[in-house]
Amino acid sequence: MKTAEIIAIGSELLGPSRVDTNSLWLTEKLSDIGVEVQLKTIVGDDGARLEEAIADALKRADIVITTGGLGPTEDDITRGCTAKALGRELVYHDDIETILRERFRAWGREMPEINKRQAFVIEGADILENPRGSAVGMLTAVGKKRVINLPGPPRENQPMFTDLVLARLKELVGEVFIERRLMKIVGMGESAVDEMAAPIYTSFEGVQTSILFNKTEVELQIAVRRDSQAEAETTADELTARLADAFGIAMFTTTGETMEAVVGRLLSERSETVAFAESCTGGLVSRRITEVPGSSAYFLEGLVAYSYPAKVRMLGVRQETLDEFGAVSAECAREMAEGALKVSGATHAVSVTGIAGPDGGTDDKPVGTVFFAYAGPSGTRSIKLLLPGDRYLIRWRSSQAALDLLRRSLLRQ
Amino acid sequence: MKTAEIIAIGSELLGPSRVDTNSLWLTEKLSDIGVEVQLKTIVGDDGARLEEAIADALKRADIVITTGGLGPTEDDITRGCTAKALGRELVYHDDIETILRERFRAWGREMPEINKRQAFVIEGADILENPRGSAVGMLTAVGKKRVINLPGPPRENQPMFTDLVLARLKELVGEVFIERRLMKIVGMGESAVDEMAAPIYTSFEGVQTSILFNKTEVELQIAVRRDSQAEAETTADELTARLADAFGIAMFTTTGETMEAVVGRLLSERSETVAFAESCTGGLVSRRITEVPGSSAYFLEGLVAYSYPAKVRMLGVRQETLDEFGAVSAECAREMAEGALKVSGATHAVSVTGIAGPDGGTDDKPVGTVFFAYAGPSGTRSIKLLLPGDRYLIRWRSSQAALDLLRRSLLRQ
Repeated sequence: MKTAEIIAIGSELLGPSRVDTNSLWLTEKLSDIGVEVQLKTIVGDDGARLEEAIADALKRADIVITTGGLGPTEDDITRGCTAKALGRELVYHDDIETILRERFRAWGREMPEINKRQAFVIEGADILENPRGSAVGMLTAVGKKRVINLPGPPRENQPMFTDLVLARLKELVGEVFIERRLMKIVGMGESAVDEMAAPIYTSFEGVQTSILFNKTEVELQIAVRRDSQAEAETTADELTARLADAFGIAMFTTTGETMEAVVGRLLSERSETVAFAESCTGGLVSRRITEVPGSSAYFLEGLVAYSYPAKVRMLGVRQETLDEFGAVSAECAREMAEGALKVSGATHAVSVTGIAGPDGGTDDKPVGTVFFAYAGPSGTRSIKLLLPGDRYLIRWRSSQAALDLLRRSLLRQ
Repeated sequence: MKTAEIIAIGSELLGPSRVDTNSLWLTEKLSDIGVEVQLKTIVGDDGARLEEAIADALKRADIVITTGGLGPTEDDITRGCTAKALGRELVYHDDIETILRERFRAWGREMPEINKRQAFVIEGADILENPRGSAVGMLTAVGKKRVINLPGPPRENQPMFTDLVLARLKELVGEVFIERRLMKIVGMGESAVDEMAAPIYTSFEGVQTSILFNKTEVELQIAVRRDSQAEAETTADELTARLADAFGIAMFTTTGETMEAVVGRLLSERSETVAFAESCTGGLVSRRITEVPGSSAYFLEGLVAYSYPAKVRMLGVRQETLDEFGAVSAECAREMAEGALKVSGATHAVSVTGIAGPDGGTDDKPVGTVFFAYAGPSGTRSIKLLLPGDRYLIRWRSSQAALDLLRRSLLRQ
């Protein structure tokens, strides 16, 4: 498999507020043709560091792409540093200067003299024309390796790559066939997922996996490489099926869907509806389910009953229940879900009530104590969880547990 | 000036979908103490490359910080590679294993055997405890230089840096005096903000500014560098006051508060309460206001009335209003706010109803049409906005406009 490294150039990319979007985009395009990006570097306007970064990258990778630093000002140093790293000269091209002068004239301006720098090109490099800006790009063959210099602005960088670079890299790389799947698992940690998944995926050849914990779910991604797309798909299907089997109901999607999309799909398929009664999540469960376009088909309403009186008035929770067990209790959760079911007329209702912190915890009910209840055709049931994390995470994890309780209830019907 | 390099570790960071937020945050914190980040590397789970990256960085920079790769799974390789790059051994600490086992038990689970790996620490390194996760960090002195290994999850990484690393780096670096302020402006674009702010901030020496558009607000950050902290603060105060004057009510914070925190503070100061009636935002406004700890003091309830019947039953919207003007109308928004005010007994109520898309738009009311109403002691008023963006952004911007309507109403009382 061919490998690539990307070097993004410019002091502004080392600041706290700028994200290097080009490299994210390039990584995706390279991955599509079977080239793996193994390292990215972000370097400021320091010539020595840049030269070293290019030389080092070329030792390791088949393809080195730089972005940025091709402008006319003092601190645009990519041309010179790339040439030095390759041990080549910069050659002046008067045709580039002519084109630049014409373009400036078309904008009604004279070309500033410093733009002359942009007419220098690395010896032996192919020029990549840039109809969208003043900086041409370069593609230099170094034996079987390739060094590509692209301009920084995404609206110049990305079309140049698509129009002038991609086809030539494809030729270099040859055809590859990759099929990817994204599975998600709820209620298990990263290491527990890996312990269960590893014996399965390691029994397949040519499969790359990555496992990532994302707030409250584990993402298990596979990339299957085969000699044809059909073979890659067949193997991906088989591996996915075996993993789905092993994880059972804990794996809530094999196609990368969000939890809220899965729940929405299950409700749509059944032509059923839902309402939520929320306390500590403060509207987050309703917000998540309505993130999915078309959710008005199955989501009727959300009752964010933050205060005691709101719980009594909106949901019909009994004052005695609150007095005896408190708002954070299985009893209150059950009455909230049953109340939401009744007032909304929905097929299903789910409630959440708990202590998200940072204050409000007690010995009996520490921060992170959350009760959930489901009410629907099969009756009412409640669960209690003790969730780790800060306020943000406890609330997020509570919303996930509420949606998951609904999902499991729908699948069990 | 001391220099730093940051190395972010993990294949997932080389993918197209994940942004390395830690390094942005770390860059800012390092800049605060006068350390300049000169290079960033993102490396996958390739041991040889990581080892080389750490060794190279240590040649160039005074401080090398790695993030990620400290988990228990096969592809978490930071411990081993850092040790090799420094020419040191990994040493097993049974006290770390003991703590890990106890922590897993507190979660009601047995520690998986692979987590044992997390008990290995680089020879001579100081252990950085991690109350928020299973991976401890490390700080290793290499002559006058420092190598710091931090866990990847921002919720572990950032507190560890703040609590255990920052003070020690300050000691290393010596004193610099920088005062920063983060102002936020709503209802204006990035370039309009810069046009208004530039004549003011350019009249000050030794001030760095950055302007960043963030979904629905513009962040204007200033960093004032002076010979003493008192001088830096005085100048920052003066510049902030002049900017606040220029922007007026559009600048909702000069101290980096979120919109929901500002609204919460205004309500708390007045000992008043609020309720929300939401349609297209689906609970997002309630979710945002309850993101602030202690919000139960002023937030009574949220009524997410997604369906027509819910609007009628929960909020007392008249069926004739829905028939004549539709749910997306100033009339419906007004009745929603007035209904929420009445049923909740809150001091103030705000409603949102609109078309978040992607479907549901008409010629009259295209996607992005959103009506808001405020009802309270000063009466009822409604506004209409046409918001750009996709479903996610329209919903986010609607939540911001709803909170801002409340803020402006509170300030005008």
